[in-house]
Amino acid sequence: VLHLTLFFGTTGAGAWYLAEKLTTPHRQNTTVKLGSDKVVDTFKTENIDGKAVYCRCWKSAKFPYCDGAHNKYNKETGDNLGPLIIAKE
Amino acid sequence: VLHLTLFFGTTGAGAWYLAEKLTTPHRQNTTVKLGSDKVVDTFKTENIDGKAVYCRCWKSAKFPYCDGAHNKYNKETGDNLGPLIIAKE
Ligand code: FES
Ligand code: FES
Repeated sequence: VLHLTLFFGTTGAGAWYLAEKLTTPHRQNTTVKLGSDKVVDTFKTENIDGKAVYCRCWKSAKFPYCDGAHNKYNKETGDNLGPLIIAKE
Repeated sequence: VLHLTLFFGTTGAGAWYLAEKLTTPHRQNTTVKLGSDKVVDTFKTENIDGKAVYCRCWKSAKFPYCDGAHNKYNKETGDNLGPLIIAKE
């Protein structure tokens, strides 16, 4: 009985874990302002001095600015995310 | 033998599918310029006329512009993505 309990218990836990993993939709942002319902940033064009590069992969340590983290992210996932560039001319 | 073959065959295929699902990292973008290695957009500030709202969830049908698709995406995934707004003042 112990063996059976252990077997089905383990199988059940494994199945539960897999079901969770497979059915829970993935979220992209796991670091930026997690207490906020929706992260919105605003760029005021009068501030521009040269070029501003904004992150769209949500992996930058300098969010909302791009720090190149999209390269590592793209490599790991096969994705093709890149930043939004704001330029004067 | 047929039964065993079918059983292990099916189990193997299922295990393979699960292993794939669990180990393949997720990519956020599944629609925008899939032939491009990195999707970069540029906003020229001289073009601004009022306000520009840029998508950062990669789900907009009007990418690179935000069409509100982040709301549906956030609801489905528990994420908190939102657009980048470019404003004149
Ligand atoms: S670091 Fe996120 S787009 Fe570059
Ligand atoms: S539709 Fe993507 S941020 Fe709004």
